Amino acid sequence: MNNSIPQKSSHISFIGVSEMVTLLQSIGTESFIEGLVKYLEQDFTRWQDFDKSPRYAAHSPEGVIELMPTGNHELFSFKYVNGHPKNTQSGLQTVTAFGVLSDVATGYPLLLSEMTVLTALRTAATSAMMAKYLAPKHASTLAMIGCGAQSEFQIIAFSSLLGIKTVRIYDIDTQAMEKCRSNLANKGLTIIVCESANQVVQGADIITTCTADKKNATILTNDMVGEGVHINAIGGDCPGKTELDPALLNRADVFIEYEPQTRIEGDIQQLPQNSPITEMYHVIRGERDGRTTEQQLTIFDGVGFAVEDYSALRYVYDLLSRQGQCEQLELLANPENPRNLYGVVVDQSYNDQ
Amino acid sequence: MNNSIPQKSSHISFIGVSEMVTLLQSIGTESFIEGLVKYLEQDFTRWQDFDKSPRYAAHSPEGVIELMPTGNHELFSFKYVNGHPKNTQSGLQTVTAFGVLSDVATGYPLLLSEMTVLTALRTAATSAMMAKYLAPKHASTLAMIGCGAQSEFQIIAFSSLLGIKTVRIYDIDTQAMEKCRSNLANKGLTIIVCESANQVVQGADIITTCTADKKNATILTNDMVGEGVHINAIGGDCPGKTELDPALLNRADVFIEYEPQTRIEGDIQQLPQNSPITEMYHVIRGERDGRTTEQQLTIFDGVGFAVEDYSALRYVYDLLSRQGQCEQLELLANPENPRNLYGVVVDQSYNDQ
Repeated sequence: MNNSIPQKSSHISFIGVSEMVTLLQSIGTESFIEGLVKYLEQDFTRWQDFDKSPRYAAHSPEGVIELMPTGNHELFSFKYVNGHPKNTQSGLQTVTAFGVLSDVATGYPLLLSEMTVLTALRTAATSAMMAKYLAPKHASTLAMIGCGAQSEFQIIAFSSLLGIKTVRIYDIDTQAMEKCRSNLANKGLTIIVCESANQVVQGADIITTCTADKKNATILTNDMVGEGVHINAIGGDCPGKTELDPALLNRADVFIEYEPQTRIEGDIQQLPQNSPITEMYHVIRGERDGRTTEQQLTIFDGVGFAVEDYSALRYVYDLLSRQGQCEQLELLANPENPRNLYGVVVDQSYNDQ
Repeated sequence: MNNSIPQKSSHISFIGVSEMVTLLQSIGTESFIEGLVKYLEQDFTRWQDFDKSPRYAAHSPEGVIELMPTGNHELFSFKYVNGHPKNTQSGLQTVTAFGVLSDVATGYPLLLSEMTVLTALRTAATSAMMAKYLAPKHASTLAMIGCGAQSEFQIIAFSSLLGIKTVRIYDIDTQAMEKCRSNLANKGLTIIVCESANQVVQGADIITTCTADKKNATILTNDMVGEGVHINAIGGDCPGKTELDPALLNRADVFIEYEPQTRIEGDIQQLPQNSPITEMYHVIRGERDGRTTEQQLTIFDGVGFAVEDYSALRYVYDLLSRQGQCEQLELLANPENPRNLYGVVVDQSYNDQ
């Protein structure tokens, strides 16, 4: 970590949504995702150094608020994320997120970042990184099932990292498909709008399922998928929310992030607790096989894990450090004498510091 | 909750250290603490409505980083707090803290607040609130053992809420005593600087122990404390860090915040798991007795609980709402169409909103 942001010990760096958009526009979404994949690979390679705790979840009738902490000997991070399906009725987002990165040696927070946009980027970067190890060589066609908030980020990541040239898209909502097609019109991709899930998967080397319904759905049945395909299944990500036919899972080699979490939240919640799986950090470290044959059917059953948020925050912090400037928030008290905290309260000049 | 801060759905309110100092200076530390006690009493009265989870703790050789979440059907809060004893060697604080308050109905964060100063205020307000129920009537003399960062806040709270007129102070560090005496010189209190723990407790109706050593110390032995005293023991607050002679705990009626946490972190970690205690919410609700006789020895074995941080954040948010203005952070993405998050990234005008 090369911190060159001029930072007082009373301040932390802050990147809000506008600043994240500016950062993305300045370096390009493709370059941002390519850089993030390098950070993800570094952190998956040292996977066993991380504290891996279950997320904290506060459930209410309307939704859930979660805290997702993790860290290693160097940095600590957590993400705050909510999920409130009814929010859209009042013009609010279903999901919002922000995160904090801290220095473990001092306990001081370093960065507060928006993570609604950043989570979409890290999810896309994670999917593409996994596909580097799992997708068939020379994959050129991606089928995208579900054209919601994640879809463009996913497509850009696969285009940039795997050389995908043709994208077949499908959503039950035709407006969502048109939004996706229009947003990607200038990317040099051939985009084919399809009329059904059966149609969209035809000829695809990689199939991404990213649908939103919170139920046990079957977006892909066993008979829809041929040999030599990689399925990037990221919409089945909480208890009671799945996308794949169990027969498809049984037929495939299944790869996941972190077994204790994915058994509960992933598509494999439909399978017995001892069903065969491979944790991806083994593959990235070269300890276990990813794809070994052209005919193999592989599935990445992705649910999103705190280490990926850690990588994303670490990456953003380094990008900001390289820029050498960032908005600063005075979040931390900084009395001259640490035992004289009260001195801060009565110091008429403290707020002029 | 009466939110009258003009707040966009993309923004959250922010109060840093300078703004907290300005707020305190504008309404006075005494009034702030008195108002906070009302919020604490409201929340202790509805104690059973709160999610009460163990804190999340990330330990490292240098210290600990903790997340302390709680919430009820209305609001969710969490505090980030670190503890790094060696920080002072490099001019940093041992403890820094910040917190977030969120709306449970939407999952949206409402307020980001510094909590280094605010935690000192809530700890003092909690101690004084407990003493309202436990201290002898007409208590007029407070003995303060430990003159660190918390001491002035504690003394002001007891002066303001219990009418304490005389304060006897002791610390092994004479400079800390002088700092405390000097900071409180204009408060109309008689402050007596003492030379030993034995001396400081003489004639005291209330004894506060708030020392910093992370070890099993015996600040107060059984023979030092007579009848009819209330002990506000707040320095013994983590495993291996205690202040009281077990004989003193056995002789007294012991009152605590939350049994599962205090059995591990409080002074009663020295006693058997089934030693008699009373959780204070019962006393505040009128369901169990606090002090019943003038001769009784009472101890509040305080460790600090997440609900108190919730009360403090709720109070600050309401104070800011009454002011009608507050700094705003653009922490949340706000696309016109929630499914078009990517539209934000390519919108050249987004960051001019």
